[in-house]
Amino acid sequence: MTFDELIVTRRSVRQYKEEKVEKEKIEALVNAAIWAPTAGNLQLWHFVVVQDEEILKNIKLFSPGMPKTTHCIIAICVDLADAEARGGAFIRKSAPVDIAFAAQNMLLKAHELGLGTCVVKSYNEKSVGQILKLPSEVVALMLVTVGYYENSPKVPVRKNILEVIHYETWESEEKANEQR
Amino acid sequence: MTFDELIVTRRSVRQYKEEKVEKEKIEALVNAAIWAPTAGNLQLWHFVVVQDEEILKNIKLFSPGMPKTTHCIIAICVDLADAEARGGAFIRKSAPVDIAFAAQNMLLKAHELGLGTCVVKSYNEKSVGQILKLPSEVVALMLVTVGYYENSPKVPVRKNILEVIHYETWESEEKANEQR
Repeated sequence: MTFDELIVTRRSVRQYKEEKVEKEKIEALVNAAIWAPTAGNLQLWHFVVVQDEEILKNIKLFSPGMPKTTHCIIAICVDLADAEARGGAFIRKSAPVDIAFAAQNMLLKAHELGLGTCVVKSYNEKSVGQILKLPSEVVALMLVTVGYYENSPKVPVRKNILEVIHYETWESEEKANEQR
Repeated sequence: MTFDELIVTRRSVRQYKEEKVEKEKIEALVNAAIWAPTAGNLQLWHFVVVQDEEILKNIKLFSPGMPKTTHCIIAICVDLADAEARGGAFIRKSAPVDIAFAAQNMLLKAHELGLGTCVVKSYNEKSVGQILKLPSEVVALMLVTVGYYENSPKVPVRKNILEVIHYETWESEEKANEQR
């Protein structure tokens, strides 16, 4: 699969089979994640992999957007105290962005391995932190559900790039559009 | 190049040649970006491509971390008013994360095309917005420098995944480490 095919055919999957995700594949996902760039190469991330059904059940209670059939979650976490100590207040702001770079590598790698994923951003951070027994200054900034799936979801409509690309300044493109 | 090779050999490039990046390649980068997932498929992004040396000079004045030899910037922007109108306050928070997913696709696509990139997050948002003539509610959330380069930078050291992977809960891994 070419890179273009990989990015274009990746879908957000919300319906998973019960089939367990193998440890080697989980590690391949984390390995992909850690090659993403980070501000100052600080690599503040931690990855908590959850496949225990009891823990999953508890997380789902605090995450309304989590697919019901989720059997594997990778929680991407950051130690915010460590972040601030090493990179200042700026890093606290940039950490969620670094996490997202890593997550995107993970989503693409999963797709290459035949696994579906879905990013879940809406959940009770404090409760999920307690369930995962995170130290007090560590926060789960993103949950990624991972699993095998039966059917690939439909392709969500994408905007044409002409709607979102501007040259030199915002206005120049508006003018160019008017002239068309 | 396989996906693994792509992610492992991508570097943050801070020294660019003067050679102009072709419009087709710029469009290929934006095309890669828009296949990233977005919360609610809102696709709030806009991409302002700057290659005008006068505008670049002005942006560099307000971006201390920008490589001096930068001849092309893609500013990834979001209309925050539109974001909030369509997705509520939550989207305002999640937009920077969606932008990062898109940026990571762009960094990898650039690398595949032989282009170097560097993410710049430290700049004066208001001044850059004025230079790019962004409407008042549109914010440039990330600048990505793009260009041809002579030498590939050294590989920054990556943590071993055993340092950052935890199973089931944070603690379980600490216990596993102790037992090793």
